[in-house]
Amino acid sequence: MRLPSIDDIIAAHKRIKPFIHRTPVMSSHLLNDMFGCELFFKCENFQKVGAFKFRGATNAVLSLTDDQKKLGVVTHSSGNHAAALAKAAKMNGVNANIVMPETAPVVKKNAVQGFGAKITFCKPTLQAREETTRMIMDQTGATLVHPYDNFNVICGQGTAALELTDEVKDLQIIIAPIGGGGLMSGTSTTIKGLKKDIQVIGAEPFNANDAYRSFYSGSIVPSDNPKTVCDGLLTSLSNLTFAIIRGNVDSILTAREETIIECMLLIWERMKIIVEPSSATVLAIVRENPGLFRNKRVGLIISGGNVDFRKLPF
Amino acid sequence: MRLPSIDDIIAAHKRIKPFIHRTPVMSSHLLNDMFGCELFFKCENFQKVGAFKFRGATNAVLSLTDDQKKLGVVTHSSGNHAAALAKAAKMNGVNANIVMPETAPVVKKNAVQGFGAKITFCKPTLQAREETTRMIMDQTGATLVHPYDNFNVICGQGTAALELTDEVKDLQIIIAPIGGGGLMSGTSTTIKGLKKDIQVIGAEPFNANDAYRSFYSGSIVPSDNPKTVCDGLLTSLSNLTFAIIRGNVDSILTAREETIIECMLLIWERMKIIVEPSSATVLAIVRENPGLFRNKRVGLIISGGNVDFRKLPF
Repeated sequence: MRLPSIDDIIAAHKRIKPFIHRTPVMSSHLLNDMFGCELFFKCENFQKVGAFKFRGATNAVLSLTDDQKKLGVVTHSSGNHAAALAKAAKMNGVNANIVMPETAPVVKKNAVQGFGAKITFCKPTLQAREETTRMIMDQTGATLVHPYDNFNVICGQGTAALELTDEVKDLQIIIAPIGGGGLMSGTSTTIKGLKKDIQVIGAEPFNANDAYRSFYSGSIVPSDNPKTVCDGLLTSLSNLTFAIIRGNVDSILTAREETIIECMLLIWERMKIIVEPSSATVLAIVRENPGLFRNKRVGLIISGGNVDFRKLPF
Repeated sequence: MRLPSIDDIIAAHKRIKPFIHRTPVMSSHLLNDMFGCELFFKCENFQKVGAFKFRGATNAVLSLTDDQKKLGVVTHSSGNHAAALAKAAKMNGVNANIVMPETAPVVKKNAVQGFGAKITFCKPTLQAREETTRMIMDQTGATLVHPYDNFNVICGQGTAALELTDEVKDLQIIIAPIGGGGLMSGTSTTIKGLKKDIQVIGAEPFNANDAYRSFYSGSIVPSDNPKTVCDGLLTSLSNLTFAIIRGNVDSILTAREETIIECMLLIWERMKIIVEPSSATVLAIVRENPGLFRNKRVGLIISGGNVDFRKLPF
């Protein structure tokens, strides 16, 4: 199992740069005062398709051989990766097949359909997704671009942290959410490859704390139908992301649902930007552990901004 | 009646620059494609207190004499100007008295109280506001900083357009919302003082079209308890703002409530930024009049982002 290096991430950044947005890093005096530290939000909600996932999907599509491009790509995703792969494929003239749970938010279904990808719906279980995906691969010869258990996807996700550390000097801590671990794998590879002394913290909802339990027990604990408002953090680590995270991440902290919702509302109200619940976990970690962050310079990866406005948690 | 000139606005900008945010100008390929023109959003939702009003209030407070500063300031406002004056006063050690309608959104009341201003509630009519304000002036000697019928306030509001035209060259049209006309007065003074060939358009809800009717009839038509989702655009023009708008504005267009709400949602969904309904009127004008804007470079002043998330119109 080959793990990505900082050089792989730098190469990915060079490859995808013409296709992605260099997203802004935002700050808020109000939130800095409230939390007693300096917070730097890397706003991937402003990325194309509204999520960091476009980085990894673009890197995966651009890394296909010409023969692979002709046969198309396939993936299963709860939403953001689906839209990201659909758009990245379309921009490169590649067919995309998306396996999506029936329960995915309408806004995410619409986004995928808008990019001309073919959607196949399945039950909202990991098993159903994987079986349906396998069937499509057999039928079409399409290449699987897994949402996180994929070397090229992870390298793409790591480029957000690359831009953040390029723009904000002297960061002391960086926090990113953990679902399947793709963003955290890329982020931690970037940070430990560039500046070992920056602390890398993973943020997880307490109600979906499989990565936390995996990290501290030493073996992968599967996610078991978790009940959380963070619809982007329902998935389990893979062997690849677990190996990277074990090697690079300093700690994983969990936050309560109430804190996540409170922090989502805080970001909306104070910063006037739309972030999805999964993104608010990073601020919720700071909220629940003020002593760890006091007077520190803290980078926060805001993963996305795709929200169903008719189902707000507040 | 002295009308402001471009020199007054440039002087105001120099005065307030250390206190305000230079807000970003944002674009969206998706919206450009959808509307067939190039849209440049001047994002005053990212201004301090979440609205352009902080520019005018700051200029008014900084223009007080030392004796006036000791006696404090007073205003009546449906919300954003209240928070703006409260914060501008606090930053300069000046007492602020705010007269506010009982019906103002909770988020706006909280903001004003957070800045330590004294709130006096009144009935939600112009008459009640003005009488209560007069009473406070008599009791305290405080200087009235009217939300828009004020030379210094108007000069401050005009600085948003100054930054926009500095950053985006070759604009052909600029659109700003009209409530009492302070933003439009400042914006149009800036544009006609700098670049006469840029077309200046005022945006109003059809359901609160008093400025439209005033502009085309030639005398001020008062706003009569209008029913619109745009809680920032309920007020009537004053003699001062009407004189400036008649002299500088090329046309006033109105948009339907459904279009305003649709455009507010479009901005939230596609741009991932929070704008209040009043701000969405500018995009609604483009939506309802595509022929006027096709292939043009259009500047849009996004007035603010203070929204009560528990009372969304969609």
